[in-house]
Amino acid sequence: MRNVKLIIEYDGTNYHGWQKQKNAKTVQDTIESAIKGLTGEKAELTGASRTDFGVHALGQVANFKTDSNIPGDRFSYALNRILPDDIVIIESQEVSPDFHARFKSKGKKYRYLIYNSRFPSAILRNRAFHVSYKLDFESMKKAASYFLGTHDFSSFRASGSSVKTSVRTMTDVLLERDDKIIKFEISGDGFLYNMVRIMVGTLVDVGMGRINADDIPKIIESKNRKSAGRTAPAEGLYLVEVYY
Amino acid sequence: MRNVKLIIEYDGTNYHGWQKQKNAKTVQDTIESAIKGLTGEKAELTGASRTDFGVHALGQVANFKTDSNIPGDRFSYALNRILPDDIVIIESQEVSPDFHARFKSKGKKYRYLIYNSRFPSAILRNRAFHVSYKLDFESMKKAASYFLGTHDFSSFRASGSSVKTSVRTMTDVLLERDDKIIKFEISGDGFLYNMVRIMVGTLVDVGMGRINADDIPKIIESKNRKSAGRTAPAEGLYLVEVYY
Repeated sequence: MRNVKLIIEYDGTNYHGWQKQKNAKTVQDTIESAIKGLTGEKAELTGASRTDFGVHALGQVANFKTDSNIPGDRFSYALNRILPDDIVIIESQEVSPDFHARFKSKGKKYRYLIYNSRFPSAILRNRAFHVSYKLDFESMKKAASYFLGTHDFSSFRASGSSVKTSVRTMTDVLLERDDKIIKFEISGDGFLYNMVRIMVGTLVDVGMGRINADDIPKIIESKNRKSAGRTAPAEGLYLVEVYY
Repeated sequence: MRNVKLIIEYDGTNYHGWQKQKNAKTVQDTIESAIKGLTGEKAELTGASRTDFGVHALGQVANFKTDSNIPGDRFSYALNRILPDDIVIIESQEVSPDFHARFKSKGKKYRYLIYNSRFPSAILRNRAFHVSYKLDFESMKKAASYFLGTHDFSSFRASGSSVKTSVRTMTDVLLERDDKIIKFEISGDGFLYNMVRIMVGTLVDVGMGRINADDIPKIIESKNRKSAGRTAPAEGLYLVEVYY
């Protein structure tokens, strides 16, 4: 069987996340249905990241096995003709049989958009987290810089989730403001469940003066979810890229 | 009666334009209904620009007369609680009785977004014009610069439309590229029907090599709609600001 890799952009607003589940429309089963429509095969799609309900992707990666003779780079064209317009295969290619979108991933990049204005945005609804309070951007920037490097990020992991280790390395952190839009971008070798959303919720608490920017190292050291800030909503989060 | 000015952001995707019409939902009648729900009055809303089906606004301006005693700056809060989330009143204030959103306007600023990539964008669907051809950006930039200044823009006016004069002055023209997104912004003292969309269609024809950038002055001089390029679709157009 051949192994095909897909790079996928989607608007997560109308999907119950990436992963297949009963009685709910998800991105994974929508693409699997399109593959079945195209090849007749019941393919199992492996995604790099199980994005939650409402989370968007600019570069989710997935792979599936096929016996069809459609050239790897043609799957994007063929699937886009079948898929709804809130899911787009931006690239497809045949890869080696051992490629696994999730296990072979070396890191990921996420983006989070905050819309900081008195009223929500009509254009960016479902695309950004609306915060009406005035935010102290310089403090947020300082706070964000503490995420860089290798840390045990237990304080930034949804309680109840479990993994072998909660040590992760963040290689790039960026916080930019352009008028009403604050953009947070972070790259790392892996992310715990809800990690980016808790980081952003904490940055917003810093911006509002509820948390001191220089307390971030202490919050990290505490390894306690309760010492960090709120979980920012799904709608502002974008999976930008998966590294291999 | 008091005169109230509104600044309005809307996602035009689900509206048959600004202006009220029979058997179709428009932005104007949606806001008029909200005002009626709030004040009980049947207000007539005067908009600065009659945006078409699918066109968006970041700063449409409108005014209406009212006998209610709601303070001018509270209308935004009260109306936003009633309005659907694709229409947001970003500012409201009481203005002098002679303020008229349309007749007192001294100029407008429009933005147009082109998404230049092999496949359409899931995130920017209904928000940008998808062009899959490779575009020569430098030529487009050169072409756009010819729009600056005072010209008879008959070549960039939808055929069939009529106004007293088709001479307009463009005070600012900008064309920027950020990866796949090309942003065109233009400010002027007035715009003919479909003018920005025909300008953008012409710029895309320049980018594709169908029209030479240096032929724009000749196209303007011809005062003939047929010498300009295609009309770009509504979905990429944003009314950014109205000047008074």
